[in-house]
Amino acid sequence: MARSTSGESVMERVLRIIEAFDVSTPVLTVSDIARRADLPVATAHRLVNELIELRMLERDGERRIRIGLRMWELASRSSRVVRLRDVAMPFMEDLHAVVRQHTQLGVLDGDEVLHIERLSAPGSMANATYVAGRLAVHACSAGLVLLAFGPEDVRERLLARPLRRYTPATVTDPQQLRQIFADIRTQGHFLADRMCIPNAVGAAAPIFDANGDILAALTIVVPSDANRIVGHIPALMTAARGISRAVGMAGFSLMLPMASDAKFLAIHRNSRP
Amino acid sequence: MARSTSGESVMERVLRIIEAFDVSTPVLTVSDIARRADLPVATAHRLVNELIELRMLERDGERRIRIGLRMWELASRSSRVVRLRDVAMPFMEDLHAVVRQHTQLGVLDGDEVLHIERLSAPGSMANATYVAGRLAVHACSAGLVLLAFGPEDVRERLLARPLRRYTPATVTDPQQLRQIFADIRTQGHFLADRMCIPNAVGAAAPIFDANGDILAALTIVVPSDANRIVGHIPALMTAARGISRAVGMAGFSLMLPMASDAKFLAIHRNSRP
Repeated sequence: MARSTSGESVMERVLRIIEAFDVSTPVLTVSDIARRADLPVATAHRLVNELIELRMLERDGERRIRIGLRMWELASRSSRVVRLRDVAMPFMEDLHAVVRQHTQLGVLDGDEVLHIERLSAPGSMANATYVAGRLAVHACSAGLVLLAFGPEDVRERLLARPLRRYTPATVTDPQQLRQIFADIRTQGHFLADRMCIPNAVGAAAPIFDANGDILAALTIVVPSDANRIVGHIPALMTAARGISRAVGMAGFSLMLPMASDAKFLAIHRNSRP
Repeated sequence: MARSTSGESVMERVLRIIEAFDVSTPVLTVSDIARRADLPVATAHRLVNELIELRMLERDGERRIRIGLRMWELASRSSRVVRLRDVAMPFMEDLHAVVRQHTQLGVLDGDEVLHIERLSAPGSMANATYVAGRLAVHACSAGLVLLAFGPEDVRERLLARPLRRYTPATVTDPQQLRQIFADIRTQGHFLADRMCIPNAVGAAAPIFDANGDILAALTIVVPSDANRIVGHIPALMTAARGISRAVGMAGFSLMLPMASDAKFLAIHRNSRP
């Protein structure tokens, strides 16, 4: 593998270029990219040009760069999250039609919940996440459900380190979190009352594969009044069970259980000190 | 850029590795990858290992490789197709709730329609496409609508070359296609009766940005009887107009109109002889 004088491979530099694009900055100039990716402008220019030739990036008439359609296609067409989402979607639509609030599907990745789908009614409240967005795993209902049913070592590793408090309601004490995990395993769902952002209440339920390993969490998010969500929890749990059953029937044997990928977590930790 | 003895760059080889994964082959061994990407096994092995370290690929307990969660995330979080899809989704859900048949959102990419979203009821018929799947532009309702409202040079380039006949109903004659384009511009929609696969009828309507440039096509697909779709066309057109209006309000100024990207088409042609 060719390496720059800093010992970095071409691929590492390319990844830093791709990571420069974010939901709030979907369009960048080459100098933006160089600055964000911490690369010399000439290097960024050369790599960006090659990525455009390969259709991984696109350039518009004003020489601004963005992620290419081809990259989205290649990442999506065989992705396990897209398969899971396809199976979950009819159930999510039905649930969304009933509750008319944000309905989300999230998986565990490192210390965070990665949202792979969200349905929102035009009138829904503002929300802390978006498709391909992340939330801290200990501060949202989906994350706590994913941890509660996930492997013990993943849970213990999280509890062993200091946790950030996002709102006055975020639980950061390991003993309290252990109690929450036990309650979730008993009740089969969790209601997070303003734990992540001050004006949102979320409720989540687990989705399992045919072996009973946790794959994902289904969540609904409503404005601050927790009373508004309690009545929806049976519908949420029913939809989550429907998705688990459909996942089993679809034969997701090729799918890695999301939460048991301990190495994943370690890598993720290293890259986010 | 480091190049192999064949003059190929690292990135070109990495792209061939990523392209080896497809909807029908989401999980591969390193030797599968080497064969599909036409690379020596040692080279494939080295590049795959680096991609796993960077979390672009993942390896399961049986040493099988698949596209990584991180790659999907990076490709999705700032992608223009994901933004378009977010704006379109509430309208697609409403349409789908009424027609209870496949409801799809497609954009033009080269000579093909790339489907960026699909909603399907559990009881829907089999369908020729899937999310991140492609259909030949002249053989489906979405493609003909995208061409009809797209730039003339894109249309003429397509008409200048031999077109494949997928079913007895696929139109391949340039004169007939010109008439179809004119009709679509007058009527604002198109009904493709078994043009792509023998037992499916599709109807599509255009989605425009605030400048009136075509961005995408909204499609419904029903089993073979065309009479079943005619009654749904007003709902389809209404939903497509709703999406166009929402796109305008969302200020999609950063979004390239899909169909006018002539260079795209040329590159795509070269890579698919």
